[in-house]
Amino acid sequence: MNRTRKKNKSIKIIPLGGLEHIGMNTTCFEYGDDIIVVDCGMAFPEEGMLGVDLVIPDITYLRENIDRVRGFIITHGHEDHIGALPYVLNVVNKPVYATKLTMGIIEKKLDEHDLLDTTQRIIVKHGDVINLGCFTIEFIKTNHSISDATALAITSPAGTIVHTGDFKIDYTPVYGEMIDLTRFAELGKQGVLALMCDSTNAEKPGFTQSERTVGRKIKSIFDEHEKGRIIIATFASNVDRVQQIINAAYEHGRKVIVEGRSMVNYITVATELGYLKMPENTLIDIQDMNNYPDDRLVLITTGSQGETMAALSRMAADTHKKVKIKPGDTIVFSSSPIPGNEKAVTNVINELYRKGAEVIFQDTHVSGHARQEEIKLIYALTKPLYAIPVHGEYKHLRAGAEIARTMGYDDDHILILSSGDVLQLSRDNAQVVGHVQHGTVMVDGLGIGDVGNIVLRDRQMLSQNGLIIVTMTLEKHTNKMLAGPEIISRGFVYVRESEALIEDCRRVAEEAYTKCMDNEVTDWNRIKGQIRNDLSDYLWRETRRNPMILTIIMEV
Amino acid sequence: MNRTRKKNKSIKIIPLGGLEHIGMNTTCFEYGDDIIVVDCGMAFPEEGMLGVDLVIPDITYLRENIDRVRGFIITHGHEDHIGALPYVLNVVNKPVYATKLTMGIIEKKLDEHDLLDTTQRIIVKHGDVINLGCFTIEFIKTNHSISDATALAITSPAGTIVHTGDFKIDYTPVYGEMIDLTRFAELGKQGVLALMCDSTNAEKPGFTQSERTVGRKIKSIFDEHEKGRIIIATFASNVDRVQQIINAAYEHGRKVIVEGRSMVNYITVATELGYLKMPENTLIDIQDMNNYPDDRLVLITTGSQGETMAALSRMAADTHKKVKIKPGDTIVFSSSPIPGNEKAVTNVINELYRKGAEVIFQDTHVSGHARQEEIKLIYALTKPLYAIPVHGEYKHLRAGAEIARTMGYDDDHILILSSGDVLQLSRDNAQVVGHVQHGTVMVDGLGIGDVGNIVLRDRQMLSQNGLIIVTMTLEKHTNKMLAGPEIISRGFVYVRESEALIEDCRRVAEEAYTKCMDNEVTDWNRIKGQIRNDLSDYLWRETRRNPMILTIIMEV
Repeated sequence: MNRTRKKNKSIKIIPLGGLEHIGMNTTCFEYGDDIIVVDCGMAFPEEGMLGVDLVIPDITYLRENIDRVRGFIITHGHEDHIGALPYVLNVVNKPVYATKLTMGIIEKKLDEHDLLDTTQRIIVKHGDVINLGCFTIEFIKTNHSISDATALAITSPAGTIVHTGDFKIDYTPVYGEMIDLTRFAELGKQGVLALMCDSTNAEKPGFTQSERTVGRKIKSIFDEHEKGRIIIATFASNVDRVQQIINAAYEHGRKVIVEGRSMVNYITVATELGYLKMPENTLIDIQDMNNYPDDRLVLITTGSQGETMAALSRMAADTHKKVKIKPGDTIVFSSSPIPGNEKAVTNVINELYRKGAEVIFQDTHVSGHARQEEIKLIYALTKPLYAIPVHGEYKHLRAGAEIARTMGYDDDHILILSSGDVLQLSRDNAQVVGHVQHGTVMVDGLGIGDVGNIVLRDRQMLSQNGLIIVTMTLEKHTNKMLAGPEIISRGFVYVRESEALIEDCRRVAEEAYTKCMDNEVTDWNRIKGQIRNDLSDYLWRETRRNPMILTIIMEV
Repeated sequence: MNRTRKKNKSIKIIPLGGLEHIGMNTTCFEYGDDIIVVDCGMAFPEEGMLGVDLVIPDITYLRENIDRVRGFIITHGHEDHIGALPYVLNVVNKPVYATKLTMGIIEKKLDEHDLLDTTQRIIVKHGDVINLGCFTIEFIKTNHSISDATALAITSPAGTIVHTGDFKIDYTPVYGEMIDLTRFAELGKQGVLALMCDSTNAEKPGFTQSERTVGRKIKSIFDEHEKGRIIIATFASNVDRVQQIINAAYEHGRKVIVEGRSMVNYITVATELGYLKMPENTLIDIQDMNNYPDDRLVLITTGSQGETMAALSRMAADTHKKVKIKPGDTIVFSSSPIPGNEKAVTNVINELYRKGAEVIFQDTHVSGHARQEEIKLIYALTKPLYAIPVHGEYKHLRAGAEIARTMGYDDDHILILSSGDVLQLSRDNAQVVGHVQHGTVMVDGLGIGDVGNIVLRDRQMLSQNGLIIVTMTLEKHTNKMLAGPEIISRGFVYVRESEALIEDCRRVAEEAYTKCMDNEVTDWNRIKGQIRNDLSDYLWRETRRNPMILTIIMEV
């Protein structure tokens, strides 16, 4: 390899998401006429995004450069890395490369969006090297909280960039091999231009525990709770976790019931593809639950995040059709609350306790992300010229940068990017040389991007104070009132108990109209404005509330 | 004391709130014709309570027994113990007993509600004993995250009940004395019927650290950050914390700026009453900030919970009029996020980091609540016959019960109550003998209880999908359409970009009307229903959304 020749050749790295919040991981690598995209994730809506189902990155840049896009490389099957694919492929239909389980999960998703037939899909194995334009991409085995995760060595004429994807170092993984540290070391020896390293746990000291430690804990819970049902909630995508629960159940002679749609989906895909082994005569249908005594049963369920509609939450709320929580049940949260879900999880725990169940929610989960010492090890092996922390919120990226600093990198060689940045990177220079369009596109039902700030502001206002509608019918030309004003309210006050207030609103609206007539105001917008203002003032005085006020004038 | 005589005499304990969620602490004690009420707190609205400002307990029971109510005894000045007072006093106007600082805070609140003149207020000191009907109530010094907190020894002919209020054991408090353990011991020796003990931290092992440890940490932060501004966010009501920040500022020759309305309010009250000492020439107005170099300034601010409108959040969002965050600033969260606020706090931290500030949010706070070993100590000293864990969610009460169990109490002598329970308690028997009306009353603006489930359901629906209004004017008797149908939407789609969809809605509504006319349907409710159904089906097909649909027919 001729390093001097490479010296002035530069690659562009353009993240379109994944650097401001958890989620929406989508990064373009660009050299000459070739663009490859690593991951294509969605994110959950932020707090103010009322009614929004999910958000995806603005991919205008890819659309405008569609002829140069060579494909999507997916590191693993979590929603924050694959969730935007169906939406993006609809616009930028390019081949998708992923390992087997990852592709199995993607295919389920594409099928739901009717995109299976039109999407070219290439399954790769760890160790494979593919060529896309001037890029070669090598897939390197890693460990994570979902099987078949991969790191990438992305080589272009500018050099090799190692992208870890989401990863941890698990010396004793449940399924398959440990992370291919040897390959990271070899790449380091050959020379790595930049390391883009998962920073999600960069604030946390030490090493993340092996997934197997959870297995041991689960077994000890089974040992200590021989009587009664055991119900375990975990992340549906954590196939290794589910495997360990199944193993414990099998060893203790308990039948397994799988409950919750996404749990059934993931287990089906993982079993079909050989990532999950279900011992014979272990799985039973929830319909048959009553044929077994409680101490012969384990339920594996969704709802570990306290999601209102998930199976465990419905059990806690006594609205689950098949499972009624009772004293003697042991409920295990094999999970930790994702930030923002803490209160919902606690509410479910309280409800379960109230029904007399025992609830276990500590030491029953390990993270899928590398902590500080693991991150340092990857730096030590790959010895990159530049450190580019990725994945997570800004404070995580900052912690990732701090780790690089302790590893001896100076500020010129540590790069915290923002979405839309165009980073031009060569051995002798790293510089943000421009910005491309980027942002958050809200998905609501079938609508992609048709909910914007105006719609959200209205939803916000309606959610806080409801609305009042004033309707009246006026005669054309004369503006004589033929009908109304009528008052209709929703989400404001309980009307049956507030008849006087509603009647007063009618009177205020009528007086505002009369005032307009007396002053010979004939412009309907001004009449509407007068009614809205007077009513708004009146309601604020009387109730200290600000409902949305809509005045509708019909013309006859 | 003649214990045999007391044997069959029983007291009733009736909690009206405080046992299901954090907040709304309100408990009645009833003996014969006398009722006293301990605390009168509010709670923050639960997640689904859109637009609700706060919630208070249903006090129907007090209203119906108003002639027997002798007064309100308040343990300390936090909102979850005093916040409902203005609303409750309006209905049940009885004397309020509290220590000096607590009363100062209550008076500020009563003043805002114009209740100062009509409320009888009695300031008590630790060690005081008051008589209310057949009750004697003794005030016992405790420590908490607000000064002047008190425990109560409530004695009736049935015996003595010790109620801790919110407390911790602080051997080295910042202001005033440590908790009066001696008095707890004396009461224990005399005989205690029941201990109602704060369980908020009952899940946590060990001892809560002294408030002074935070003072030392703050000083070390000042030592290590001699350059640049220091901005510290904390709970406005934690006067001792504020004092320690002021002390550190004074010692380091920095001027203090107080920012945020509630911070100003609490500091004003605490200073007036002598609970806070502001060294001369230390406090400056924010207007004068620019007259001092950054390294001579400390800002004490609200916003430690990431509340959108609080001062620190506005600084982070660059919408604060006076303070612009910049590199060199050190920002300290002297707080921990209250459950539910985690994400909001993290968002603020990320924004502050992005602006180049250093942010410190670890080891800068201690709790105001006793942990397991402190709770055990109070049991050991008071030796109650019954254990009644109070304050907190069900899981906290359960942990409080577990502590009593480890102290040797059997299940018959540990009582976890629910709001509304009427616990009848005597030396030889403890039994829930009935239930009184209880619940959550929502306060929205000036409205108390006029927002109920129907209003919330409408707000929920509006917040998720917005609304569509169909208006038409029909001729009386003939039902001929004179005007419309017109379509108005809010919070549904961005109308300017969805003109075709809105026009289709108009067409669907018109066809539904025509269908009714063709079938000689003349009942307006049926016409409205037809339009709503057809439009709802159409929109679900086209958008997979379910907006609220209102059909308004005007008659001419």
